[in-house]
Amino acid sequence: MGWSRKDLLGLRQLSAEEIKLVLDTAVPMKEIIGRKIKKTPTLRGRSMATLFYENSTRTRTSFELAAKFLSADTVGLSASSSSVMKGESLRDTGLTLDAMGVDVVVIRHPASGAAEFLAGCIPAAVINAGDGTHEHPTQALLDMFTIREKKGTLAGLKVAIVGDILHSRVARSNIWGLTKMGAEVRVTGPATLMPPDIEQMGARVYTDTDAALEGVDVVNVLRIQLERQQQGLFPSLREYSKLFGINQRRLELTAPDAIVIHPGPINRGVEIDAQVAYGSRSLITRQVTNGVAVRMAILYLLTGGETNAIPH
Amino acid sequence: MGWSRKDLLGLRQLSAEEIKLVLDTAVPMKEIIGRKIKKTPTLRGRSMATLFYENSTRTRTSFELAAKFLSADTVGLSASSSSVMKGESLRDTGLTLDAMGVDVVVIRHPASGAAEFLAGCIPAAVINAGDGTHEHPTQALLDMFTIREKKGTLAGLKVAIVGDILHSRVARSNIWGLTKMGAEVRVTGPATLMPPDIEQMGARVYTDTDAALEGVDVVNVLRIQLERQQQGLFPSLREYSKLFGINQRRLELTAPDAIVIHPGPINRGVEIDAQVAYGSRSLITRQVTNGVAVRMAILYLLTGGETNAIPH
Amino acid sequence: MGWSRKDLLGLRQLSAEEIKLVLDTAVPMKEIIGRKIKKTPTLRGRSMATLFYENSTRTRTSFELAAKFLSADTVGLSASSSSVMKGESLRDTGLTLDAMGVDVVVIRHPASGAAEFLAGCIPAAVINAGDGTHEHPTQALLDMFTIREKKGTLAGLKVAIVGDILHSRVARSNIWGLTKMGAEVRVTGPATLMPPDIEQMGARVYTDTDAALEGVDVVNVLRIQLERQQQGLFPSLREYSKLFGINQRRLELTAPDAIVIHPGPINRGVEIDAQVAYGSRSLITRQVTNGVAVRMAILYLLTGGETNAIPH
Repeated sequence: MGWSRKDLLGLRQLSAEEIKLVLDTAVPMKEIIGRKIKKTPTLRGRSMATLFYENSTRTRTSFELAAKFLSADTVGLSASSSSVMKGESLRDTGLTLDAMGVDVVVIRHPASGAAEFLAGCIPAAVINAGDGTHEHPTQALLDMFTIREKKGTLAGLKVAIVGDILHSRVARSNIWGLTKMGAEVRVTGPATLMPPDIEQMGARVYTDTDAALEGVDVVNVLRIQLERQQQGLFPSLREYSKLFGINQRRLELTAPDAIVIHPGPINRGVEIDAQVAYGSRSLITRQVTNGVAVRMAILYLLTGGETNAIPH
Repeated sequence: MGWSRKDLLGLRQLSAEEIKLVLDTAVPMKEIIGRKIKKTPTLRGRSMATLFYENSTRTRTSFELAAKFLSADTVGLSASSSSVMKGESLRDTGLTLDAMGVDVVVIRHPASGAAEFLAGCIPAAVINAGDGTHEHPTQALLDMFTIREKKGTLAGLKVAIVGDILHSRVARSNIWGLTKMGAEVRVTGPATLMPPDIEQMGARVYTDTDAALEGVDVVNVLRIQLERQQQGLFPSLREYSKLFGINQRRLELTAPDAIVIHPGPINRGVEIDAQVAYGSRSLITRQVTNGVAVRMAILYLLTGGETNAIPH
Repeated sequence: MGWSRKDLLGLRQLSAEEIKLVLDTAVPMKEIIGRKIKKTPTLRGRSMATLFYENSTRTRTSFELAAKFLSADTVGLSASSSSVMKGESLRDTGLTLDAMGVDVVVIRHPASGAAEFLAGCIPAAVINAGDGTHEHPTQALLDMFTIREKKGTLAGLKVAIVGDILHSRVARSNIWGLTKMGAEVRVTGPATLMPPDIEQMGARVYTDTDAALEGVDVVNVLRIQLERQQQGLFPSLREYSKLFGINQRRLELTAPDAIVIHPGPINRGVEIDAQVAYGSRSLITRQVTNGVAVRMAILYLLTGGETNAIPH
């Protein structure tokens, strides 16, 4: 099966086969990252623009390196450094980048749906690098790649997602993706931060963190946005840590070979203890490498690469 | 005829032959942008620095992509992100870039004459990407390329430039260029924003927008700088739109096959209506593509490329 | 002798042989900068990240061009544009870059010791591009390269370093490097800005600028940080210039063929007069070129290049 979509907007609309294709394509890409000479001419002459209306050095750098390892050209646009973009509609900015010959636009935007809107305006491929509280598909794909790499499969696994589910595009993309791939998804976190429709997405809500972690194969710890606490959505960081933080004691409730992942960067001692984050169960650093591999795979598939043409 | 100038500072000093050489060189460059593999090794090993003392994501990105499509290396310096440059003279910054091995410096600066000053300080080629209210030659060249591409020629065409002529480096460069190429240039806009010496440049001033548009082949709509209104130079945006805005009714005063161009980004409903900007007469998006092509041509000519060596 | 260190953190721990290896490796690198086609495939597939917690367009650009001339890929991270990095520990940022496949991290940081700390956290090579008041080894190496290039040797030369020695990582790195290479180092500047342990580093302190300059072969003029004056560490810029500024009269106290260097950018008329800075003795612009060459050499050595494999 080949890839037939112009864009990557979210995991909700992808089939299990499409998700599998991305994960499979990322396997040889990861080998490239592991080499001394991390470069193939695969996407030579293709160009990618990062269009970030929210700052994220981590995600932007991951996409830039993914593009460069495939020999694509990159240009970066960020709302903070741009006088023009502030006064310009997203549509016009997109049309401009497309007209300049850019093949792929990677967009991060505070508004849910911004990536889909942009994709409808321009012929160039659009990759959603996070839109509001909607989706962050490449993060979920790298999470799934990391789990599959370690566990061999996603089907039948029990995955607990812990944190602010309501505002988390990472959680939403993971729920869509993991359930499609046959995993059982549990969510837990402050009741004030639990979306009412979450069970309709296929996840099971746990009000007690310990119960949610019972026997799971994977703990996906979400990053706490500190401004939520200022908004009164949870009492205090100390309280948060006590009720939902992943520490050594809680880790013992999980399956014996359970793994811990986190989109990073971590708030040490809040949603995760340093002992867990840097411990033997943690795959947080490996997720970063896999993020580059998954983004290489996405760039490759969206620009018309043939899966049998990946350089070895 | 070959190119013999070290720099591109403005269109005032270029001959019609030189302008024609740039436009002709941009034709095969545009083909490169249209390809799937948008890359030639033409300028491999050459390097371009963008030195922007005013923000312009659009122009900077256009130059960056132009350089990358020709395999040149790029580095970006902007006044906003630089502590060093603020305390350093333009001359010293230029000498530094030149000493680092940079072949071309693309400068945008709020002071008229800054590009020429820099060009006099350093052996590297200097491209004026807009200096104060003086010139913006690559914008005018892409405007002329777009007109010529559509109309087949520039000679004998009637072109109306509408807006704040006084502060517009785009208008000035267009007037110098278009008149050299044999076009008839009309200018119109608020009387408070009309430079007294404009007729000596070869343009004809119209106080009435409708009269200016009568039978023209091209309408070049300038972007309104909203801060001019705050300075009291025109009464209100609504009033501006009523008196000078290009709308469907006004478009009907022009020649039947007249085209509309705008340097972008547009202020919808102020200097141009959305119906016109996104209508069939508008070449605004095509201008963006042509901007990359024209900048590729300039980079190519300034770094000593031979016109018969352009890769096909 | 080959290069065996993972990182370049300072000159204090380097041997004279290691310093010589860097300087010797930079010689053919400088030839590359002097060519029309400034590019070799030497570091193709290697990647360098600049991680700047303090702004320095000059140093960042020098490293970027050095990497690009060797065909390495570059990504830039700066504290000012990054929301993530502000809340993230240096260790986590380093681990992230390393996990992304970055081979070399160039760090500038306001805290002395930051480069060494980072180097201890990650397998990737770390280059110290200035850490607090500690060291700035590539600046000192380019200073020494420039002196050696002009004088043929470093051994036996008399070098005066003039300025705020206390806060100057440039001075410290120069003292460590120059004394190892057999030069005699004199330091002078405001008594309030003279570190108490400076003589233990091998430099000789002069309280009188004229006496310090007597018969020296090299004057290394430090840039005055204007905020030091606001902190009351010296009386006024005029006073500073009178007591420590390098002018034509003072230059006549030096050896007949003495040279003047400065890390740039200069404060004209404060620590150095324009007549001297742009005069025939000044090698300030040449230092900039040599800075790129020295950084090319460092990147080459740290990524495992063989000295006999430098392309000609």
